[in-house]
Amino acid sequence: MMNYQKYKRFETISLPDRTWPDKHIEKAPIWCSVDLRDGNQALVTPMKIEEKVEMFQTLVDLGFKEIEVGFPSASQIEYDFLRLLIEEHLIPDDVTVQVLTQCREHLIRRTFEALKGLDKAIVHIYNSTSILQRDVVFNKSKEEIKKIATDGCQLVKDLCGEFDGKVILEYSPESFTGTEMDYAVEVCDAVMDVWGATPDNKVIINLPATVEMDTPNVYADQIEYVGRHFKDRNRMILSIHPHNDRGTGVAATELALLAGADRVEGTLFGNGERTGNVDIVTVAMNMFVQGVDPKLDFSHINDVKHVYEKCTKMEVGPRQPYAGQLVFTAFSGSHQDAINKGIHKYRERGSKYWEVPYLPIDPADVNRQYEPIVRINSQSGKGGVAYVMDTIFGYHLPKAMQADFASDVQKISEAEGEVSPERIFDTFNKDYIENEQPLKFVSQKLIDISEDSSNDFEREAIIKLNDHGNIRIIEGYGNGPIDAAKDAFNRNGYPYMHLLDYSEHALTSGSSSKAAAYVCLRAKGTSITEWGVGVHANITTATIKAMISAMNRIYKRLDDSK
Amino acid sequence: MMNYQKYKRFETISLPDRTWPDKHIEKAPIWCSVDLRDGNQALVTPMKIEEKVEMFQTLVDLGFKEIEVGFPSASQIEYDFLRLLIEEHLIPDDVTVQVLTQCREHLIRRTFEALKGLDKAIVHIYNSTSILQRDVVFNKSKEEIKKIATDGCQLVKDLCGEFDGKVILEYSPESFTGTEMDYAVEVCDAVMDVWGATPDNKVIINLPATVEMDTPNVYADQIEYVGRHFKDRNRMILSIHPHNDRGTGVAATELALLAGADRVEGTLFGNGERTGNVDIVTVAMNMFVQGVDPKLDFSHINDVKHVYEKCTKMEVGPRQPYAGQLVFTAFSGSHQDAINKGIHKYRERGSKYWEVPYLPIDPADVNRQYEPIVRINSQSGKGGVAYVMDTIFGYHLPKAMQADFASDVQKISEAEGEVSPERIFDTFNKDYIENEQPLKFVSQKLIDISEDSSNDFEREAIIKLNDHGNIRIIEGYGNGPIDAAKDAFNRNGYPYMHLLDYSEHALTSGSSSKAAAYVCLRAKGTSITEWGVGVHANITTATIKAMISAMNRIYKRLDDSK
Repeated sequence: MMNYQKYKRFETISLPDRTWPDKHIEKAPIWCSVDLRDGNQALVTPMKIEEKVEMFQTLVDLGFKEIEVGFPSASQIEYDFLRLLIEEHLIPDDVTVQVLTQCREHLIRRTFEALKGLDKAIVHIYNSTSILQRDVVFNKSKEEIKKIATDGCQLVKDLCGEFDGKVILEYSPESFTGTEMDYAVEVCDAVMDVWGATPDNKVIINLPATVEMDTPNVYADQIEYVGRHFKDRNRMILSIHPHNDRGTGVAATELALLAGADRVEGTLFGNGERTGNVDIVTVAMNMFVQGVDPKLDFSHINDVKHVYEKCTKMEVGPRQPYAGQLVFTAFSGSHQDAINKGIHKYRERGSKYWEVPYLPIDPADVNRQYEPIVRINSQSGKGGVAYVMDTIFGYHLPKAMQADFASDVQKISEAEGEVSPERIFDTFNKDYIENEQPLKFVSQKLIDISEDSSNDFEREAIIKLNDHGNIRIIEGYGNGPIDAAKDAFNRNGYPYMHLLDYSEHALTSGSSSKAAAYVCLRAKGTSITEWGVGVHANITTATIKAMISAMNRIYKRLDDSK
Repeated sequence: MMNYQKYKRFETISLPDRTWPDKHIEKAPIWCSVDLRDGNQALVTPMKIEEKVEMFQTLVDLGFKEIEVGFPSASQIEYDFLRLLIEEHLIPDDVTVQVLTQCREHLIRRTFEALKGLDKAIVHIYNSTSILQRDVVFNKSKEEIKKIATDGCQLVKDLCGEFDGKVILEYSPESFTGTEMDYAVEVCDAVMDVWGATPDNKVIINLPATVEMDTPNVYADQIEYVGRHFKDRNRMILSIHPHNDRGTGVAATELALLAGADRVEGTLFGNGERTGNVDIVTVAMNMFVQGVDPKLDFSHINDVKHVYEKCTKMEVGPRQPYAGQLVFTAFSGSHQDAINKGIHKYRERGSKYWEVPYLPIDPADVNRQYEPIVRINSQSGKGGVAYVMDTIFGYHLPKAMQADFASDVQKISEAEGEVSPERIFDTFNKDYIENEQPLKFVSQKLIDISEDSSNDFEREAIIKLNDHGNIRIIEGYGNGPIDAAKDAFNRNGYPYMHLLDYSEHALTSGSSSKAAAYVCLRAKGTSITEWGVGVHANITTATIKAMISAMNRIYKRLDDSK
């Protein structure tokens, strides 16, 4: 058994009068991508410079206005990349690049060298403030740790004089969540004092969950608590930087936004150290599906995924919200049935709001497809099979027929596993349309005889068919083409002529000039019923073919039962 | 831009006097695995029967006491699998199997056929109760929907008479989160009334987030709300069944536990429809790292991952908490340095509690390794390189030497990307140990001359070396072996003899009978300093070799600068 006593929860503040749980996310935060820094540093194969350029341009296209491009004083590649962005004028006017540096003199100086030529930049300084890191890593007092921060801030301020552009200061008390909240506030306030922060010259105070340490409500409490305790909340932008060690990075971000955060640092698809940074795609799309403008454009999510996978050599998993390969796939029959009905109702009603069971988002809104939604396996019910036939192939199987056909498909899936839509359609063709033994339709002639007042019947049907290898021509009469065809079979010794159900429709997909007809027959004097299907440009021909199809299935049933 | 106005938030209850945010998770819930049902139904290739058996036995070994094994009335494979479990006596006495069925008569009857021979079972009936599903899927009134549930319950109750074992009833108002809370309570209470639930005959009331619809605090509010409003909270076990459409399934589970849930249905690694069910591994391990006994044993997490991947054909992603390949890997130099220091302090102090920066869990607790924690790339600092040399190869590089060597490694990583530990060690060997040009140690003799009272010096060192291809023998004197060796070099024309730093240690890893010595020399009359390293079973020999190593590096520097 596992030694759980080796661990304990980190005790932080209590905030019984928290207000965040009563709030909703009403607008998008300021987004800051750290894909090129925190994300890149956690890659087995860090991005090459051309991959960095492609990632940067993708981030710009998605709508990011703040992008952390690296730690130029710590790595020559990141220095060179920033110089390239500047010298080749790749940074749009409305985008601000951000650079990270520890609060160390030579690193800050080198950072400013990297920035030359920019008209604005966010200079992001940090030092670790947690109880644990002060103890085991730095062995410094609270005052000494605070001084690292304020000295760093002062140096940035001093160097601004030599820089032609505008510097926005960002300060992170790294490992914030493991820091005493009042001390974190004290350090941040000291930094803002040194900087001379004002409502017109705000400092970005970034509060990282460097390691995710507790349930996400605790992070929200911390954010609300410090938000109340800063000397002047108006001279700062409160930024968060969540990680995902407990698998709750998205939740921590959302609850921290409720708790008052203004800005979110994260990455596409949650790339980053260990379990990753918070996934901005999911946070933004979660806003979208609640009717909040995310201020990022994921309308072509597969393209974003493609660039991400190419640059990072990481894969987006099949169950990743919004982007994963399987997230618009419903396997369960009852889900498929409900989706089917939901989509029809949504369209039929012309609803303003998307509301479809099991599909929290219309896949089309991220340029994904309906087609792969339904996959048929041994767990699927008739709804799924019907959905595939309908959505992909355009056959609206009558409800009563769905169970029959689905049970054929289920037998296949129990033997073979998942059944592809193509396999389903092949089965349908083979079982219902190409089942031309022992009877095979050859031709038909329908004579309108309604002008002959001496005859009660209005239609005469003349049907030519191949019956067990012999050509036969049969005729029948009725007050409509179906009645006439049925009569032709009945009066010529075909004993399968209780017509139980009938429907037809134009085939809207594939061969659009054709119609499909469905009939259900019961063999006379038996309880055997079978469905048949016919497809033809002429609806009467389609119906006659459907009757022959059903009769052939009845022959087969009788043969099988011998 | 994306059309966010097509969506709106689902309005649910408001609960300003919620109490859950003040609570902590103090004990594990009842766990119910739905890997073989909800998980299996969402697989592209559903498990074969032998894979189901292996998965079932793994779940038992992990400590699950309740396991949903399928929907036997809907699938012959699931029926057969349950019969196999029963007939081959594969269900331990302390494990209860659970079967799912819709509230439909023929399915419930068929379910009871599948159960024959069991001494106990959880019969899990469900119907969908949400506003949306009542409208677009069922087109039924609230009363009609409630009657589906109570009729199903009554039939299960009736069929109990024909069943020899004990039936525990579970009822799910499916799509609970999209249901009016008071109506959900009404339906569940009606089911419990029909069943005749009592504190001794509890019903499991399972409240699914069939589709995750809002931030996780909203689910917690719903759970706390209904928990307060059931007629008798003591006659039920409150179970939750979260999905992950918004990427917050783990958080929703945790907050719902705070809100009073007794039981959690989920899957290993979050397999399940679309974005998956909640990942029980993460929820359980999150408890573990807060000192709560998770009542599940993930002490060999790679083995669990292996079985999971084999049976489901899904992969556990590299950033999956606790189990992912990269989650115990730190790429950042400052992280590596802090981890290094944290582990040393943890061991040195013999701390009761695991507290190491950036490593929320000791990888050994899930039978994973420290070794792959540090990977060196262009983002790594000296701490990471030092950590690899220390942890993997047993060389404790002096602090002042770490930066020198790390900068050599960084040059490689900037050119080549990630640098493996082996590549680091090869570089170290080549640069510091095998750098035997132009000087190469041949032998040394150390004479203890302390008995000769007429001589001030206590040691004489006689060193034989190959100098630019010629064998030389030099001697020197000192009050210790290092002084004597230094003197030998200094008095024989080797001008590199300011010894700035020195350290040595036994090599604990690899060649354990040897010692490593590190010296830093400054070339006389210059500011050039270099480190050298020597390894030998004799510590004096190691030191002399280290001096020669440092001198060879100084020669090289002087050559390079010509």
